[in-house]
Amino acid sequence: MKASQYIKAGQIEYREVPLAEPGENEIRVKVAYCGICGTDLHIFKGHMDARVKAPQAVGHEVSGTIAAMGSKVQGFRIGQKVTVRPLDNCGQCNTCKAGFTHICEKLRFLGIETAGGFAQYWTVPARLVHALPEELPLKLAALVEPLAVACHDVRRSELKPGDYVVVNGGGPIGMLIATCARAAGGNVTLCEINEKRLDLARQLGFKVINPLKEDPVAVVRSETGGSGADVVFEVSGSEPGARVITELARPRGTIVVVAIFAKPVPVDLHKFFWKELRMVGARVYEAQDYEQAIALTAGGTLPLETLISKVFPLSELQSAFEFLTKTPDAMKVLIQCNDEVEK
Amino acid sequence: MKASQYIKAGQIEYREVPLAEPGENEIRVKVAYCGICGTDLHIFKGHMDARVKAPQAVGHEVSGTIAAMGSKVQGFRIGQKVTVRPLDNCGQCNTCKAGFTHICEKLRFLGIETAGGFAQYWTVPARLVHALPEELPLKLAALVEPLAVACHDVRRSELKPGDYVVVNGGGPIGMLIATCARAAGGNVTLCEINEKRLDLARQLGFKVINPLKEDPVAVVRSETGGSGADVVFEVSGSEPGARVITELARPRGTIVVVAIFAKPVPVDLHKFFWKELRMVGARVYEAQDYEQAIALTAGGTLPLETLISKVFPLSELQSAFEFLTKTPDAMKVLIQCNDEVEK
Repeated sequence: MKASQYIKAGQIEYREVPLAEPGENEIRVKVAYCGICGTDLHIFKGHMDARVKAPQAVGHEVSGTIAAMGSKVQGFRIGQKVTVRPLDNCGQCNTCKAGFTHICEKLRFLGIETAGGFAQYWTVPARLVHALPEELPLKLAALVEPLAVACHDVRRSELKPGDYVVVNGGGPIGMLIATCARAAGGNVTLCEINEKRLDLARQLGFKVINPLKEDPVAVVRSETGGSGADVVFEVSGSEPGARVITELARPRGTIVVVAIFAKPVPVDLHKFFWKELRMVGARVYEAQDYEQAIALTAGGTLPLETLISKVFPLSELQSAFEFLTKTPDAMKVLIQCNDEVEK
Repeated sequence: MKASQYIKAGQIEYREVPLAEPGENEIRVKVAYCGICGTDLHIFKGHMDARVKAPQAVGHEVSGTIAAMGSKVQGFRIGQKVTVRPLDNCGQCNTCKAGFTHICEKLRFLGIETAGGFAQYWTVPARLVHALPEELPLKLAALVEPLAVACHDVRRSELKPGDYVVVNGGGPIGMLIATCARAAGGNVTLCEINEKRLDLARQLGFKVINPLKEDPVAVVRSETGGSGADVVFEVSGSEPGARVITELARPRGTIVVVAIFAKPVPVDLHKFFWKELRMVGARVYEAQDYEQAIALTAGGTLPLETLISKVFPLSELQSAFEFLTKTPDAMKVLIQCNDEVEK
């Protein structure tokens, strides 16, 4: 089969590679689309060479159809539309035993620690495969994985209908969180400094704040009777972002840490104490988040199509990474992994 | 009546002051004991002149008996043993309306924003007075206020019996949290660098770690199968403390911010995300924490007597502050506010 493999920082090669035979509990997915995650971009830039064994295809935001199944796989059929929850947990550590398998202490991330979805076929454990409704277009289904991240983030926030919500950062995940939070009944404002992203957010009907032009704390306070936001999602991963979250949240408000911070940043723990804030970390997703993301995608009410900036063929993964690198306002970029794919 | 008033940084004066007549909904408490809080020490050092209107008696950790009552006060009787929950909330702000009156956006702290308990009598709103069991010694009852802080902190942590608990900081509040957390079924380890405090903690039966001598993260991991603590109370207010909390907590563990941090400090938000940690701020107490603290004190199973380092008469408040300033390992210092007090 063909795959586009990561070779070294800045270099992808489109190659012929062996087609893996599914083990008895595995499924071989014919990949329709595989989205590019921020993590994939980090890999392309050479930041994650300790985890990726080059040459290796990466990618984990996959939609496709079942091409082959191992002898013990049950409950699926050849040709069925599916997506993959790419978290291979150990089942043995204290965290798995406590039920938090998605943050397993020895988690292997399929498509990072193992070969990934930027290939014609992807062979994965059957227990990580989620069936899709047959009417769901596979192009949209490639957004189930990042949407499941957003569903998980919103679930961790425990937001209630009517809550005033601030999403700090309007990249693909921030935009999906805003979308999910609104679907959960939140009154959402998005903070972002990139004007093109702000335009998109406006187009999607969100209130927006550009912190370079107005003070988000003043705006949020004036809109909440002086108290602040019920829920703040920190998706910017920036020092100014970390500085403002404790200001934005109301007394007893919730902050969800979604972004990946490269190093420890100053946090105002006095505000934290004073307002009895709650802050929760949110990482990836659990099975129920996938099911919710699939249901939301199939429901057709989310503006997911609008979030797809561009589709490249598998042979042009290198160009797709380069496009993303020089297009800071791009949202989701998909790779079409077979010449012919089901709708 | 006599009161010991704060005059200016480093200066207390023992003086005759007018005895306030209780308003119709107020109670005049004859103060038996008033404990010195870390906040009082800050006031003595001149750090809080913006909130305190000198000359003013401060102090808010009071036990005593009812000396007089306003015409509309019901449910109390003259001579009854009581303590005071010194939080005068506005009842009007969004936070009060949401039920979090203890962190009211316009909170007045009795004994800081108003005259306090380092006086023979203290006149306060009846709704903030809690009755004490008649058999409860008033000396121990002066510890109800700081114990209620600890009860609130432990309640915010949602700790479950059997949880592995680390208390970061072994001052009076840290020691009371350790005591409460153990009463709630926690398996408690206390981190502290002062050897005299460590001796006291050992004497009280706690496991201890001196971070200057051994690595708390290594110790806690080795005792928890590599995972980390279920609950971490940050009571040190130090930068090293803030650095270590995200290391000490297990995946999905809880951090409670109890300490008052003078400025924003670096926090590892990546660990926060990675382990899906939960951090909650905990400030003062609610009515139910007071009731729990009274019940625990009356229960007689907590080693509260051991935590009282010294008792000074009201006339010697200046000396008491000076003693605390130069005795970093001191625990609770009480002021006896009348020559004759009930047991």
